[in-house]
Amino acid sequence: MKNTSILTVLFCSSILNVSAQQKPSGNLVQYVKPIIGTAKMGHTFPGATVPFGSVQLSPETDTLSYELNGKYNGDVYKYCAGYQYDDPTIVGFSHTHFSGTGHSDLGDFLVMPTVGKLQLNPGTKEHPENGYRSAYSHANETAEANYYKVKLDENNILAELTTTTRVGFHQYTFPKTDQAHIILDLMAGIYNYEDKDVWTYVRVVNDSLITGYRQTNGWARTRTVYFALSFSKPFNQYGCQNNSKRQVYRGFWGKFDQSKNFPELAGKQLRMYFDFKTNENEKIQLKMALSPVSMSNALENMKAEIPGWDFEAVKKQGQDQWNKELNKIVVSTTHKEDLVNFYTSMYHAALMPTVYMDVNGQYKGLDQEVHIAKGFVNYTSFSLWDTFRAFHPYLNIISPSRNADIVSSMMAHYDQTAMHMLPIWSHYANENWCMSGYHSVSVISDAIIKGTYKGDENAALDACVATAKHRSFEGLGYYMDMGYIPSEKNGVSVSSTLEYAYDDWCIAQLAKKLNRKDVYEEFNKRSENWKNVYDKASGFMRPRLSDGSFRKNFDVLKTDGQGFIEGNAWNFSLYVPQNPDAMIQMMGGKKKFVTHLDSLFTMHLPDEFFAETEDITRDGIIGNYVHGNEPAHHVAYLYNFTDQPWKTQSTVRMILNKQYHNGAAGLGGNDDCGQMSAWYIFSSLGFYPVAPGSDKYYFGSPLVKSATITLENGKTFSITAQNQSDKNVYVKQVILNGKPLDRLYITHDEIMNGGVLQFVMNGKPIR
Amino acid sequence: MKNTSILTVLFCSSILNVSAQQKPSGNLVQYVKPIIGTAKMGHTFPGATVPFGSVQLSPETDTLSYELNGKYNGDVYKYCAGYQYDDPTIVGFSHTHFSGTGHSDLGDFLVMPTVGKLQLNPGTKEHPENGYRSAYSHANETAEANYYKVKLDENNILAELTTTTRVGFHQYTFPKTDQAHIILDLMAGIYNYEDKDVWTYVRVVNDSLITGYRQTNGWARTRTVYFALSFSKPFNQYGCQNNSKRQVYRGFWGKFDQSKNFPELAGKQLRMYFDFKTNENEKIQLKMALSPVSMSNALENMKAEIPGWDFEAVKKQGQDQWNKELNKIVVSTTHKEDLVNFYTSMYHAALMPTVYMDVNGQYKGLDQEVHIAKGFVNYTSFSLWDTFRAFHPYLNIISPSRNADIVSSMMAHYDQTAMHMLPIWSHYANENWCMSGYHSVSVISDAIIKGTYKGDENAALDACVATAKHRSFEGLGYYMDMGYIPSEKNGVSVSSTLEYAYDDWCIAQLAKKLNRKDVYEEFNKRSENWKNVYDKASGFMRPRLSDGSFRKNFDVLKTDGQGFIEGNAWNFSLYVPQNPDAMIQMMGGKKKFVTHLDSLFTMHLPDEFFAETEDITRDGIIGNYVHGNEPAHHVAYLYNFTDQPWKTQSTVRMILNKQYHNGAAGLGGNDDCGQMSAWYIFSSLGFYPVAPGSDKYYFGSPLVKSATITLENGKTFSITAQNQSDKNVYVKQVILNGKPLDRLYITHDEIMNGGVLQFVMNGKPIR
Repeated sequence: MKNTSILTVLFCSSILNVSAQQKPSGNLVQYVKPIIGTAKMGHTFPGATVPFGSVQLSPETDTLSYELNGKYNGDVYKYCAGYQYDDPTIVGFSHTHFSGTGHSDLGDFLVMPTVGKLQLNPGTKEHPENGYRSAYSHANETAEANYYKVKLDENNILAELTTTTRVGFHQYTFPKTDQAHIILDLMAGIYNYEDKDVWTYVRVVNDSLITGYRQTNGWARTRTVYFALSFSKPFNQYGCQNNSKRQVYRGFWGKFDQSKNFPELAGKQLRMYFDFKTNENEKIQLKMALSPVSMSNALENMKAEIPGWDFEAVKKQGQDQWNKELNKIVVSTTHKEDLVNFYTSMYHAALMPTVYMDVNGQYKGLDQEVHIAKGFVNYTSFSLWDTFRAFHPYLNIISPSRNADIVSSMMAHYDQTAMHMLPIWSHYANENWCMSGYHSVSVISDAIIKGTYKGDENAALDACVATAKHRSFEGLGYYMDMGYIPSEKNGVSVSSTLEYAYDDWCIAQLAKKLNRKDVYEEFNKRSENWKNVYDKASGFMRPRLSDGSFRKNFDVLKTDGQGFIEGNAWNFSLYVPQNPDAMIQMMGGKKKFVTHLDSLFTMHLPDEFFAETEDITRDGIIGNYVHGNEPAHHVAYLYNFTDQPWKTQSTVRMILNKQYHNGAAGLGGNDDCGQMSAWYIFSSLGFYPVAPGSDKYYFGSPLVKSATITLENGKTFSITAQNQSDKNVYVKQVILNGKPLDRLYITHDEIMNGGVLQFVMNGKPIR
Repeated sequence: MKNTSILTVLFCSSILNVSAQQKPSGNLVQYVKPIIGTAKMGHTFPGATVPFGSVQLSPETDTLSYELNGKYNGDVYKYCAGYQYDDPTIVGFSHTHFSGTGHSDLGDFLVMPTVGKLQLNPGTKEHPENGYRSAYSHANETAEANYYKVKLDENNILAELTTTTRVGFHQYTFPKTDQAHIILDLMAGIYNYEDKDVWTYVRVVNDSLITGYRQTNGWARTRTVYFALSFSKPFNQYGCQNNSKRQVYRGFWGKFDQSKNFPELAGKQLRMYFDFKTNENEKIQLKMALSPVSMSNALENMKAEIPGWDFEAVKKQGQDQWNKELNKIVVSTTHKEDLVNFYTSMYHAALMPTVYMDVNGQYKGLDQEVHIAKGFVNYTSFSLWDTFRAFHPYLNIISPSRNADIVSSMMAHYDQTAMHMLPIWSHYANENWCMSGYHSVSVISDAIIKGTYKGDENAALDACVATAKHRSFEGLGYYMDMGYIPSEKNGVSVSSTLEYAYDDWCIAQLAKKLNRKDVYEEFNKRSENWKNVYDKASGFMRPRLSDGSFRKNFDVLKTDGQGFIEGNAWNFSLYVPQNPDAMIQMMGGKKKFVTHLDSLFTMHLPDEFFAETEDITRDGIIGNYVHGNEPAHHVAYLYNFTDQPWKTQSTVRMILNKQYHNGAAGLGGNDDCGQMSAWYIFSSLGFYPVAPGSDKYYFGSPLVKSATITLENGKTFSITAQNQSDKNVYVKQVILNGKPLDRLYITHDEIMNGGVLQFVMNGKPIR
């Protein structure tokens, strides 16, 4: 078949889709439901933001911010994104939020409009009337891409939010009152306890502009966010409540009453208010611009991004940005729910990392100095243990220039940190060292191997090597000397050995591309270290002691204390993405391996063991396969390396259907900064990057009926699934540009060259 | 007599002085004794610094830094400069110190060398062996301008210190040991309590360079000092003790042991150590550069000011600077003690304010933004309630360009603060609002009237006016409306009314010069407000109520609660420097006033009232006249406004002799950032600026035998005192440039035009 014929087929297929009414229009924003994942463990936020925006302006329904007694609140984990769908009250709207993380920070600059008696405390969810928070109803709530609206029942105020990259735009419609207040709670924040508030500074510049900053010691150890806040209407008066328990010289020698109309404020825990008189339905608007560098930069950001007060225009501008982002992949599906899942996944996969520099190019570096990003956009918030798997490979296809900037940002991190290591989990000019491995090397190798990154490739390799040789990093010295991390030396010795081995393989692939033979040989050898923790007796990767023996006490269902991080041996033992063939052979061959995999997906994980599994709800698990967390994300594709690839196809479709839904509880685990969503997007399109660093994408079973990816290079890559249906989950044939493929993967170049990939679907497995 | 004749006389006088051996050589540093004022209430520091240097590298003998239990230590006031002469131990050497203040802050970056067992706590003065501090003896201590040396007995280490403007240079001579340590205590500081330590950040850049910053909430509310610290020899290992009680995520997820050889540290309360092996008498040197802006600027400052390791050269360079500064006035005296007092006064009057900008011109503004000082050197630490009286007038004569820069710095403060007020008591980009009045206007008016300041004079006047009309400032609204501050509205209503009236007169004088008639009239009227608090019945200024009546309960000897700040009615009632004639008339005429003044200097102040007098020792008082604090500094000169000016002459000489001595306890009160010293210098030369803002200096009685002031304009102004002796304290005649004067003052122009002022002294008053 010639290409032209295929195009005809595609065209017909398109027609068919239209008739099934699941062909999206150019306005793809309509399919984005930010509310997905806001219940239970998704940890997404429903508020307004633009793609990769610095500002995520979103409601908080409760956080630890209000525990002034210093007591640890066990619910903190629920509020990673500040909002839980089942909560009855909204505390306020703050400007920074992670999407889908399993630990947290941020929640800067909580704003809340109220009327009546001024109450400078948040109150409780049981008694919102005793504080500034308000009850609300989901019936009166709208969450769209870059637009959030809610009626605040307590005070009869309509709150609307939209944003640009660096500015949050609030619009509050008040009732008629002499006592309208806008609260700015500068001590609120996500995961706020143990003196997290380090310092806060505010200047009231005039009757409608204030500037300041908030400095915290949280997950980011040394973090400061600067702001400029402009009001559309001058406030009549203002004031500040200083809740700092310990502060030297607070009194300014009694010269001034700092609690009211005093324009220079500072302390550890401040709350401010601004008073207005309003007419019925009078709108008061606020623009809050952020900067990582200075108050003056924040003001400059505001002037550059939102010079005026046209809320609707700013909302539309952001939604246009979203449509541009979403239209990079135009799909048709059998069900509308799938369209919503797909575009919400694209939405969730365009929230993090976030732009971390001012309009003038300045940003705060890991060295706590001000830098200028020369020739790249600087990003922050890299959840690399999650995102190296599918999120960054996804960007390599749809936004390679963005992923190149991300690599540049990682290299800046490397240059600026005293540790001489690439980022592990970094955000806001800080390394928080969360999770394991050194997966920056996967992202960098993948980006260079795929031609995405245009910077100094050898310098990037050197950074990877230096990172991989940092002996004092979590057991790495042992790993380098012994080929594995002894179990008695480190609590996650097995998973780290596996992850290091994969990362080392990435470095080897990059070295190979750059003709750095010595590096290639060294790291290719290291990449086989996974073999050192395989226990033939149990058939699992297993903790191994310094003396070479395997640890006796070992439970393959348990997660805690078994040598793995956030996964049990069943899920984590299969983490050899760089060489499934060798792993399968070591595990007893293909046939035995299929049985093993079947068991994983069908066995029952008793509740006692599930309780230990982090970051997921019961929905996030299938048998003993944990989809709601990352270590096994490639596992469904491993059937491709056996004689039964059709089981990959059915399993992937099963996961797509079971793990992703349209409701607030639609995600079975943390979205993890786009990784869960990137898995969905790839798998929906019919292929997946089993081992980033390789240019291969292994086939699964497409969920879409068709897809057209518009590439940055001007080409398009289209996918069709003939005979697509809920039951036809098996792939009968794959045809690339008219030529049937006799392999189970396509390569990156084949995608980037543009063309048509045609899946012919079938109701029964093709054995 | 012609000028030439006078010069002959001068020359002869010089010869005579030489024979009396009190003629100083060009090496005037030999007469500087930084130890003067380090005992009791002087609050000076003995360590090393250059004129107006940013770094004051000086030993601490005890401070509040070590009270981790948060308990307030009543002795805090003793340690305003970190050092008390009578203390038996030295805790370490820190880099920033105020000179002679009555409240405190600073003490940044305490360094201490030790040997033997590592002890990361300071220990106690009773048991220095239990900590890193050391016993020492004054016999083994040398304090010179820009050089301090002490033997640390505990560890047999010789410590030597010197500086440049922005860099402290340490030289430690160790014994032979495998366990040499250099402690860097980042939680130490002066007046450290109540969570003053806000945040500390450190990077170990390599084995001999670290950078970081310390952020405090002290007298300066929001203050950060950045540093770069270079060691002459690589350390073998290093570590950090994090004493923060409350810190989120301190553990870095257990990935690293941050206590040892971990290069990125942050927390609220950190102590670090650096380990070495040393040979006998091996010197280890440290260079600690400071910056108000960034670590990179600190490093740049270090490279610019001390690129190498030549301790002696740096010491000499600083002492050369001092000699240049001191040689601006070359005096001869009857006694060597007077030479020491004079040049130590010049030294003390060249310590503050301090340079507050980096070698690249950047500094932190009051708005907490980074600015570049364009066309001026930016200064900080303005103790204006003290220094407007004589210190700034002194600079107008010997260093007008420096005073002009100080005025520019004040104008920058005005432009940058949200308060729209000139500085009251500001330091390190903060306003601490200490003391009363708005005496910046005195400094500015005086500088402009005397032709010192070359900036925008009308803008300066506008700033003065705005400051003087800030109604919410300490009773100012009442003062503006009623002509005085009602006693029930403010605790220091009388002294503030008096000070505002004087300040207003300064504004009027400036307005007059600038032909701003409306401003002149408004403020000239305000300048008479002192009359509104004069109580004819008691003959004192007295608290007055809103209803116009004087407060019944009133004690003219008490200091507390009588409506005055740091002074009783006897001392403060005479504060009408702008119009002594009118004041004397109101108080009953010249004759009565002489009796009144005589009483002040001769009466006895009972101990119960002395106890309330702040900032002085019993030595700081003469009768009921308090010289150890500022409000009455002009009072001895008020006899000039009666028919008995000779009493000014004898009284001034008495004060010069009684209040200034060579020993550690040589100052009877806080030196107050050079004000006490400037009083000494003026009075020693024979004249004093009774009312800055006027161009007149009123005569007293010179203590010097001769003096030559080398002016910035290239001219010289010389003073001789013929027939000078301890007994010849009375002035028979004053001859200016050969012409006998029939007035009791000279003008600023007469000084700046150069010439010769000849006092003919006498043993009896000339009535």
